[in-house]
Amino acid sequence: MKNPIKVSNAVIKRLPKYRRYLEELKKKGVDRISSGELSKMIGYTASQIRQDLNNFGGFGQQGYGYNVESLHRQIGVILGVDRDYGIVIVGSGNLGQAIANYMHNYGTGFSVLAMFDVKPELVGRRVNSLAISDFDELGVYLAENFVDIGVITTGAESAQRAADDLVKGGVKGIWNFAPVDLQTPSLVALENVHLSDSLHSLIYYINRTDNLQ
Amino acid sequence: MKNPIKVSNAVIKRLPKYRRYLEELKKKGVDRISSGELSKMIGYTASQIRQDLNNFGGFGQQGYGYNVESLHRQIGVILGVDRDYGIVIVGSGNLGQAIANYMHNYGTGFSVLAMFDVKPELVGRRVNSLAISDFDELGVYLAENFVDIGVITTGAESAQRAADDLVKGGVKGIWNFAPVDLQTPSLVALENVHLSDSLHSLIYYINRTDNLQ
Repeated sequence: MKNPIKVSNAVIKRLPKYRRYLEELKKKGVDRISSGELSKMIGYTASQIRQDLNNFGGFGQQGYGYNVESLHRQIGVILGVDRDYGIVIVGSGNLGQAIANYMHNYGTGFSVLAMFDVKPELVGRRVNSLAISDFDELGVYLAENFVDIGVITTGAESAQRAADDLVKGGVKGIWNFAPVDLQTPSLVALENVHLSDSLHSLIYYINRTDNLQ
Repeated sequence: MKNPIKVSNAVIKRLPKYRRYLEELKKKGVDRISSGELSKMIGYTASQIRQDLNNFGGFGQQGYGYNVESLHRQIGVILGVDRDYGIVIVGSGNLGQAIANYMHNYGTGFSVLAMFDVKPELVGRRVNSLAISDFDELGVYLAENFVDIGVITTGAESAQRAADDLVKGGVKGIWNFAPVDLQTPSLVALENVHLSDSLHSLIYYINRTDNLQ
């Protein structure tokens, strides 16, 4: 994208969901779909959907709706999932291995290049034919290899050290699963998955639901 | 809570983060903290913090700040993490096992009672001394045992079936990691962790950052 389109973060956060539904429709062999039908599936209002998708230059045609294949592809281009990303996983316990398998099964687009861990009993173990390396080798690996994304699935105590190594090693983005708020420069994209925050929200709603019964 | 306090979802979503920082402060032996100091740590403005915490009846005192221990405990009560929750995990691959370990290491508050999977090679395997059961036994298990939360870490194709069984079995909340939007009744709390949505947001920001350089 030579001329990046400026859209709000809220819209960006909704695009992967649109893409996920369009992927389902593609698999089912659906060729086109109206904003009204999309609305019933996704749960956003039809006008919200038209407004969101208009941000990218009006993919829809009046009375015809959206071409599923084309819209899916264009959202992929906007999200940047139309090319391959090299990934390293720092922290190779169950969660790190789950992410490695997730990437492996994802098909195209993501290649796990290396995995690291501090635990001697994990170093050398193979995950989808890739041997886990010692955490201490992360810096050297990054200096010698081109990596787009670092996934942090370490415990809280090692996460900032992992992030520092990844930033120094030139990754463009960090996908953080450790329960800490990392300090990273603004030019490195950071996406957090805070499992404990999500779990606590669930617990709160469970107790609210109890009260409503 | 006999008289549930009504606060916005936005505030609720922020409470786990407050609690996480307060937990860190507690561990470091910090007794009290001002909204200004909290602001520097968490990144919200001091006035936002005061406004958020005032929702629950003014924990802070002018010129003294917040009592860390007390605020941590009170947020715990509001979130409902001051009691124990019984959990079953449906889908016992790497991600399910990661969640089981996460709960196990969390200490108090969450007990994994049973794990299920469709794959014969996983059934019988032990995770933290708990044997994985056959997915087909989920319904009977729920009829005979009291379970608060069902975690869905199956693939997309089994997730709705898992959710239906969990709802029928009387769970109060579902923590869903499968990449689908589940259909569940409104009285069952539902919290989704859509990994692919999060990953796609990251990819988008990586490409935006590229453009800014």
